[in-house]
Amino acid sequence: MTDIRKSTPLILITNDDGFDAKGIRTLTQIALQFAKVVVVAPDRPRSGQSGAITPHAPLYITELEKNDRLQSYSVNGTPTDCVKLAMHEILNEKPDLLLSGINHGSNAAISVLYSGTMGAVFEGCVQHIPSIGFSLCSHLPEADFSACDPIVEKITRLALQKTLPEGICLNINIPATEKPKGIKICKQAKGHWTEEFIKKTDENNRPAFFLSGYFQNEDPDDPATDEWALANNYVSIVPCHTDMTATASIPEIEKWLNP
Amino acid sequence: MTDIRKSTPLILITNDDGFDAKGIRTLTQIALQFAKVVVVAPDRPRSGQSGAITPHAPLYITELEKNDRLQSYSVNGTPTDCVKLAMHEILNEKPDLLLSGINHGSNAAISVLYSGTMGAVFEGCVQHIPSIGFSLCSHLPEADFSACDPIVEKITRLALQKTLPEGICLNINIPATEKPKGIKICKQAKGHWTEEFIKKTDENNRPAFFLSGYFQNEDPDDPATDEWALANNYVSIVPCHTDMTATASIPEIEKWLNP
Repeated sequence: MTDIRKSTPLILITNDDGFDAKGIRTLTQIALQFAKVVVVAPDRPRSGQSGAITPHAPLYITELEKNDRLQSYSVNGTPTDCVKLAMHEILNEKPDLLLSGINHGSNAAISVLYSGTMGAVFEGCVQHIPSIGFSLCSHLPEADFSACDPIVEKITRLALQKTLPEGICLNINIPATEKPKGIKICKQAKGHWTEEFIKKTDENNRPAFFLSGYFQNEDPDDPATDEWALANNYVSIVPCHTDMTATASIPEIEKWLNP
Repeated sequence: MTDIRKSTPLILITNDDGFDAKGIRTLTQIALQFAKVVVVAPDRPRSGQSGAITPHAPLYITELEKNDRLQSYSVNGTPTDCVKLAMHEILNEKPDLLLSGINHGSNAAISVLYSGTMGAVFEGCVQHIPSIGFSLCSHLPEADFSACDPIVEKITRLALQKTLPEGICLNINIPATEKPKGIKICKQAKGHWTEEFIKKTDENNRPAFFLSGYFQNEDPDDPATDEWALANNYVSIVPCHTDMTATASIPEIEKWLNP
């Protein structure tokens, strides 16, 4: 490519599976083709951390690697903590791009609400960094990430050539089964998790509940959704924002409040 | 009131400051005027937990109180865990209303993204329960919650009389300074947190970072925002949904992907 914006752009990378997960190592290797890379990632798996922050405990930064192209740090915090520490304490310049992942497991549909991978992406978006989360639809630690390579390369190249619209970040999910048919821009599918706990009895004979269950798609036939795209072997891209306002409902809520 | 939907409705209450915070005790006392109440709340403060869940550790439920009108439980998990356990393991019927709070501190603007109070509300919304989060704009543990009483009473009564539109939940913030001028339906203000860490040196001479900083409002003059309402001594109500899709941006992202 000849029209990369800077001769050597800077990419910030994080994830929620921890700094030594296979997914983040794959993502880092791809990003290094295009940019200097700074990795700031949790020191252990922090899946399901959503946008959680650590308000009252000390956060520590551990340097893992430092050379001309790659710096790598771990943090004893959440993915969102990692982005905040990167921006305020580690980086000397604003990154051109934040990449999060590649997550081990889907973050489609409402999983975006629980996802630490996407929590970091939303934090980047709030801080006006073009931010993209990648997830492979396989939870296996040793999942085959090779299906991700061309997608991550294409999107990273595009995002460095032409920045994302202000305030928009991307939730990209990649099917794990075979070569994807293509890429679809989607909306987040409606749904919820059901039968969520496995009940066991601990060594003190006390009931202990372990999160489990499965996703119930409430929109299974809507081809505009990310779940449909993934079920039909497409990569799904949901453009997201950090505004939770249900703007269209404001007149209805006005009436609800003042009937 | 004569037109409450059921003779004795059921309200589920949670929070992120922990089961014994003053805010949740205030909220419970008000809810008991209208309904049977089941409290399922974290066993300790879990501020800033966003929509975090606990995927790999055992969750335990501790019964604190049980009588005809009020059942109260603590859980060693996040606010979202509390809602999931309430729905799947504690309640025998779907609640008519979920109330979260009253949070000690504002959850206006982008604080909604980090808020455990609102994490629980979003979980309720995903599970099709009318769900409302209340926050008082004071972080003091012994804050005066009396300004909240008429607001929480009015909203709880309304929500039991006429359910919220499907898929819409409310983020309600209440100014702490004086009697509010009124209630405004708002949108979430744009902004970000800045100067976020206090750096200290721990006993091993290692740098330790503590989350701090202040909110930078990027929309200070927009009277449609929650921050403007609160700064002008109004209660702010932001109708929220759990769809993160930036729907209006889809055509632009299509062009970005296929230039």
